[in-house]
Amino acid sequence: MSVRIGLVGTGTVGGGCIDIIQKHRDDFKRHYGVDIELARVCSRTPKGAEAHGVGHLFTSDYKDIVNDPDIDLVVELVGGTGIAHDIVCDALRAGKNVVTANKALMATAGEEVFALAEEAGVEVAFEASVGGGIPIIDPLKHSLISNEISSVLGIVNGTTNYMLTRMNEDGMPYDAVLAEAQEKGYAEADPTADVDGFDAAAKIAILASIAFNSRVSMSDVSTEGIRGIQPVDLKTAHNMGYAVKLLALAHRLPEGIDVRVHPTMIPLSHQLAHVNGVDNAIYVTGDAVGETMFFGAGAGAGPAASAVMGDVLEVSRHIMLGVPPIVGCTCTDELPIVPMGNLETRYYLRFVVPDRAGVLATAAEVFARHDVSLRSVMQKGTRQRDAVNLIFITHTAREANIRAVLDELTGMDDMVLADPTVIRVED
Amino acid sequence: MSVRIGLVGTGTVGGGCIDIIQKHRDDFKRHYGVDIELARVCSRTPKGAEAHGVGHLFTSDYKDIVNDPDIDLVVELVGGTGIAHDIVCDALRAGKNVVTANKALMATAGEEVFALAEEAGVEVAFEASVGGGIPIIDPLKHSLISNEISSVLGIVNGTTNYMLTRMNEDGMPYDAVLAEAQEKGYAEADPTADVDGFDAAAKIAILASIAFNSRVSMSDVSTEGIRGIQPVDLKTAHNMGYAVKLLALAHRLPEGIDVRVHPTMIPLSHQLAHVNGVDNAIYVTGDAVGETMFFGAGAGAGPAASAVMGDVLEVSRHIMLGVPPIVGCTCTDELPIVPMGNLETRYYLRFVVPDRAGVLATAAEVFARHDVSLRSVMQKGTRQRDAVNLIFITHTAREANIRAVLDELTGMDDMVLADPTVIRVED
Repeated sequence: MSVRIGLVGTGTVGGGCIDIIQKHRDDFKRHYGVDIELARVCSRTPKGAEAHGVGHLFTSDYKDIVNDPDIDLVVELVGGTGIAHDIVCDALRAGKNVVTANKALMATAGEEVFALAEEAGVEVAFEASVGGGIPIIDPLKHSLISNEISSVLGIVNGTTNYMLTRMNEDGMPYDAVLAEAQEKGYAEADPTADVDGFDAAAKIAILASIAFNSRVSMSDVSTEGIRGIQPVDLKTAHNMGYAVKLLALAHRLPEGIDVRVHPTMIPLSHQLAHVNGVDNAIYVTGDAVGETMFFGAGAGAGPAASAVMGDVLEVSRHIMLGVPPIVGCTCTDELPIVPMGNLETRYYLRFVVPDRAGVLATAAEVFARHDVSLRSVMQKGTRQRDAVNLIFITHTAREANIRAVLDELTGMDDMVLADPTVIRVED
Repeated sequence: MSVRIGLVGTGTVGGGCIDIIQKHRDDFKRHYGVDIELARVCSRTPKGAEAHGVGHLFTSDYKDIVNDPDIDLVVELVGGTGIAHDIVCDALRAGKNVVTANKALMATAGEEVFALAEEAGVEVAFEASVGGGIPIIDPLKHSLISNEISSVLGIVNGTTNYMLTRMNEDGMPYDAVLAEAQEKGYAEADPTADVDGFDAAAKIAILASIAFNSRVSMSDVSTEGIRGIQPVDLKTAHNMGYAVKLLALAHRLPEGIDVRVHPTMIPLSHQLAHVNGVDNAIYVTGDAVGETMFFGAGAGAGPAASAVMGDVLEVSRHIMLGVPPIVGCTCTDELPIVPMGNLETRYYLRFVVPDRAGVLATAAEVFARHDVSLRSVMQKGTRQRDAVNLIFITHTAREANIRAVLDELTGMDDMVLADPTVIRVED
């Protein structure tokens, strides 16, 4: 008996999956007693299927897969929340097990997906949705379950980590480093999802849901990206003993879940400070295990396909043994989301201001009036004539107060010449 | 229905497990639908059980547990290959599922243990046997199974990593740093298992067996410890751009499995070079996933108990659902072990020699005669009068030839005054 797979999406990751099946099918039989048969492949055009030698399995209609009674497991690698949503939900309704790499879908429609899976008595696995090939969802759903997890911190977006690494190494300005990332294929033509933090937000929503046993959706995540970060920020941070990373953070607090994505200063001595380039890492703290980290390539055909096919093999094992789904939705609690305004931390704030007398005095007065106490102030040159960078490091302050300071300063005439750069400090 | 647990061994880790059950039993019911009941506790004396408030469950005879028809799962935390072997094997013969943290047992009697489990149709789980609380066995048995793993490199012994870290930081000599580790409870009164590499050897045997789907026993592992490593070695390595770690290495080669434990120079740019103190990390390379690393606390009550109780919950889930064992022994291939003499790498060799003319010439001649080509030679002072450190860095050489050089030089009269220090280079 073989487990028959229908694969939807034959791009980079889909191609990687086909390659793995072709290369290792016999190994899987020998090692795990699982025979994976690629039964059908769907995409808009047959190009991908043909390129990987499975043109004869091609269909352009995903319904040919979800309605095929002989298919046991549907792999969805289309991505996004449009047609992918239909593919996954239709497959579940048809009683198919589903493996997906779709972070956006799981972070926005996770509840619906799990409900359909439970109704049908099938499995949904999505290890590839976070951290590429890094095993993180499986450890959170299995190995670490004796813990109460207190925090999950992740560098989960390779594009922005590459950009920050390059800025830090070579002092390249934001625009140049983005162009380089696009040229190398690390950033898309429209880089919004990456540089504005939405990709990371979807991933931390998924991780927080599992870690805290409570549904966190993408819309619950306070999200800021790296637009506006410049080499001067990385250099200043480094001189203070910090690296700047786009961190996805989820903390369990007494009052609920604090979950956010933003550029963050982390001590150079922290393991996450050494995660560079397109690598990803997820740092998990639990009451028994203490601190543990999972590191690896966050994207790419091989790593993502490794995670997808790991799920495929695991689900296939269960299908072969007639084992019912063991772990479904783990969101058994309903914890509130803590408003971002309640956050208390230290802040790095950089304003581009006119190079004239009185600016610092005005700014300092605004900070003081909003009860934000300053630890240090630095002035650094910019590449514009008549403008300087004014950098403030605060003592611990409330986010709401910082917001008030930002609103007031940016609202003043002839005061702030560009969007301020805000970096929160995580110690 | 509850899953009834019999716990054998109430030391640090056993105590940690009892604490987790007491703290989180209700959470486990709510989150995972699994009710864990601690039914019986065994140790030589009731002290541990009483200290954790379960004196009423105490027995000093493990047979009271393995012969109790109401007990579903036996947790063995005694360690070693003596009575622990009987406990595990008797429990399996009695049809109990077993969770163990016993690396020595799994690395020497793994085949027997798996055979008994298969015969009885029960599970054996042993995540805590390697890397404390770090999930590594579960990822290798599940998430990463679509890969052909090419290597596993681990810092898997916290004691020696602590010692090497302290030597590196403070230049403390070996004896002082061992005394400090013993004082802090990181090293035992008899430090042999740690400093001579046997603990790491058991762990890499377990990891290699799973990663390569082929049985590797502790006796297959070429093992050298850190005795004889001194601050001068760490300092010299650092100046060359390397950290020195006691590395457990397993490589899949065309001719078989190369598996060993020894002090190793790794580039400072490598993630493993930043794993310090009592932390552990395991670096896994696979054909699809590329490079991935698992990091965390390698020892301690909390981390080890996290892993043990993760296994307990996972097996309990299966018991509750009536699911048969999904993954048993994974050693489906029989790969040969590559003799250590075949190894080809670069070597760091330090000899303490008399400070007199002709020594270098003699040594250089021996290297040349055994076809070992030298990259650099350094002479550094020792704390002894009339003796110097003579340090050789070789080009890539065969282990067998290095052995011949070492034998010849140490066999000469009045030439080598202490056991030479050998550090292999892993790039």
